[in-house]
Amino acid sequence: MASTKASLLDKGKRRPINFPSRVKALELTKEGVRVLDQTTLPGMVRYHLIKTPEVMVAAIKTMVVRGAPAIGIAGAFGVVLSARLHEKQAKHQPGNGIETFRKNVLEDAYLLRKVRPTAVNLAWAIDQMLPIIQEADSISKAVAALTQKAETLFQADVETNQKMGHLGAELLPRGARILTHCNAGALATAGYGTALGIIRSAYITDPTIKVYANETRPRLQGARLTAWELTQDNIPVTVVTDSMSGHLMKSGLVDVVIVGADRIAANGDVANKIGTYTLALVAHLHQVPFYVAAPTSTIDLATSTGEEIPIEERSDEEIWNLGGLEICPAEGVSFCNPAFDVTPARYISAIITEKGIARPSYEETLPDLLG
Amino acid sequence: MASTKASLLDKGKRRPINFPSRVKALELTKEGVRVLDQTTLPGMVRYHLIKTPEVMVAAIKTMVVRGAPAIGIAGAFGVVLSARLHEKQAKHQPGNGIETFRKNVLEDAYLLRKVRPTAVNLAWAIDQMLPIIQEADSISKAVAALTQKAETLFQADVETNQKMGHLGAELLPRGARILTHCNAGALATAGYGTALGIIRSAYITDPTIKVYANETRPRLQGARLTAWELTQDNIPVTVVTDSMSGHLMKSGLVDVVIVGADRIAANGDVANKIGTYTLALVAHLHQVPFYVAAPTSTIDLATSTGEEIPIEERSDEEIWNLGGLEICPAEGVSFCNPAFDVTPARYISAIITEKGIARPSYEETLPDLLG
Repeated sequence: MASTKASLLDKGKRRPINFPSRVKALELTKEGVRVLDQTTLPGMVRYHLIKTPEVMVAAIKTMVVRGAPAIGIAGAFGVVLSARLHEKQAKHQPGNGIETFRKNVLEDAYLLRKVRPTAVNLAWAIDQMLPIIQEADSISKAVAALTQKAETLFQADVETNQKMGHLGAELLPRGARILTHCNAGALATAGYGTALGIIRSAYITDPTIKVYANETRPRLQGARLTAWELTQDNIPVTVVTDSMSGHLMKSGLVDVVIVGADRIAANGDVANKIGTYTLALVAHLHQVPFYVAAPTSTIDLATSTGEEIPIEERSDEEIWNLGGLEICPAEGVSFCNPAFDVTPARYISAIITEKGIARPSYEETLPDLLG
Repeated sequence: MASTKASLLDKGKRRPINFPSRVKALELTKEGVRVLDQTTLPGMVRYHLIKTPEVMVAAIKTMVVRGAPAIGIAGAFGVVLSARLHEKQAKHQPGNGIETFRKNVLEDAYLLRKVRPTAVNLAWAIDQMLPIIQEADSISKAVAALTQKAETLFQADVETNQKMGHLGAELLPRGARILTHCNAGALATAGYGTALGIIRSAYITDPTIKVYANETRPRLQGARLTAWELTQDNIPVTVVTDSMSGHLMKSGLVDVVIVGADRIAANGDVANKIGTYTLALVAHLHQVPFYVAAPTSTIDLATSTGEEIPIEERSDEEIWNLGGLEICPAEGVSFCNPAFDVTPARYISAIITEKGIARPSYEETLPDLLG
């Protein structure tokens, strides 16, 4: 299938049914932002009430909240927290008018925008908030407008994922054995999931599908988060170590790979969790379809190829410290810890978005989709 | 280079220098077999004195001692322990003559032979001991002969590895950046290492080489053992997670991959630690040479292709239990845990042995090497 338009015809073969997740990664309340702590799952299910943009910055940085769409929403919520905070301050300091408000909230917004560099969704979501701050002429109206915008982004993300879920589910054969990497689920989004959203939509009509989850070192998002999320929703899952993908595919156990994305360049190159590229190569050599599921907000036409995508390097400790256990000698050992890698477009069979399924060549189909 | 004979000419370009390791995985003493516990490294360096074949079976099964050549030696040492034990018993029970001794020791030998199925070295080493047991006509002479044979196997393994080390080092460009998987080092052998033996031999003449060690989930032999062994010998090492290999190679950071082997089939297919196959595919697509280093005792001409090699499936707990930390939800999650995979010969650039370097096609070069 060469064009996006043609692939849109795929829609509607199955009746779209939503299979909402019980898992909620974050929500905006009157008191602040309630966030499920993804660093302690599955051992400890605990929520934090975040009240300031500074704490939101820390929560995003330490991956208490993670996943490209979720950190976008978290960023937008962080801007709301900033607006609420500066609204209160303005009340106590009558000298602080709308200009000070704009300046302070913008400052926080820019801080939030750059906490993590690879996923474009964070910058994208903040960019949705910026004009409201910049054009604000009343503090209370600005707070209301920012709150509404953030809630709209949240809701839109859920609906986007559901649409993507239905479209993606159409691509799967009955009883499909799906391998996924990292967590591109309800935990990584406002509530339905991208790759796991497709699995959710497929599972509700075909409970014979089988899900393999790569454990996804170093942060173990597959073993800790994907496994937890799927068991919360009673979807069976088999956890494997990352290096097993070759063996699984050679043994004929995988029909399709589905992963999420942190940024998609104009040419279809995809930045995603470290290990995605290795997995794509293995799928390529076994002729297993390799699908990327992401909202169109993840597509960044301003980035022409994957080479331009900044790759976040994270702390060595993520590798050598496993829940307090030091797995490596303490001295004389170096580490590399890139949090993402880039999969060239040629290894990607299709990009599944809420607006349709793009196939190569992506230079043509992606702008078509966004247009 | 098409034939083994031609590649043997490679020998001797550099002056062979041994770089012995400080690390000793096991040794036979008068009291028993002293074994370094590889399950607690690097956190705890502790030795066990094993006195019975039953405990040796347990040590091999639980990977207190591991690595294809090392478990071969451990098996042979286990037979010695059995012979010593049954010699003692014969003294206390005068009715127990040479026939009972032969029967009992053979029984233990067969038990030891099948503790782990994939590596051929265990069966191979026990098979070296069997005729001595079967042909024994005096208990004390048999004990002496078995001890001597086991010591010879031990010594031969060290020398074999040193030869392999020198041959393999010749293949490396100056300043080579080498990626290895699992632990094919002094810890996995009688004392020098196969893949790490090559690294050792290269490092002594070219300290500008760089070593990347895959952490090697689930048992973390790379992060725990390779990193520890290399730091013991002051060879710098960089630990990476298994899924990073694609990203490293795409970034041009790897010149060559060297791994060990648990069994090499007649056609050159190689069984080795799970993840080796995935790594070979990634190397193949990046045109990075992929070398297998193993003594000729690892070549099993009785196994025609990799499909005939039995793959050991190990306990789920190796995946979900990380030093006491349960990384997965306790219920509703399944696991796969094959301990090995098979890399087809077509992805292997050369097989480095103590007798020379075999290149494809292996059906021709391997028998040539053994002949």
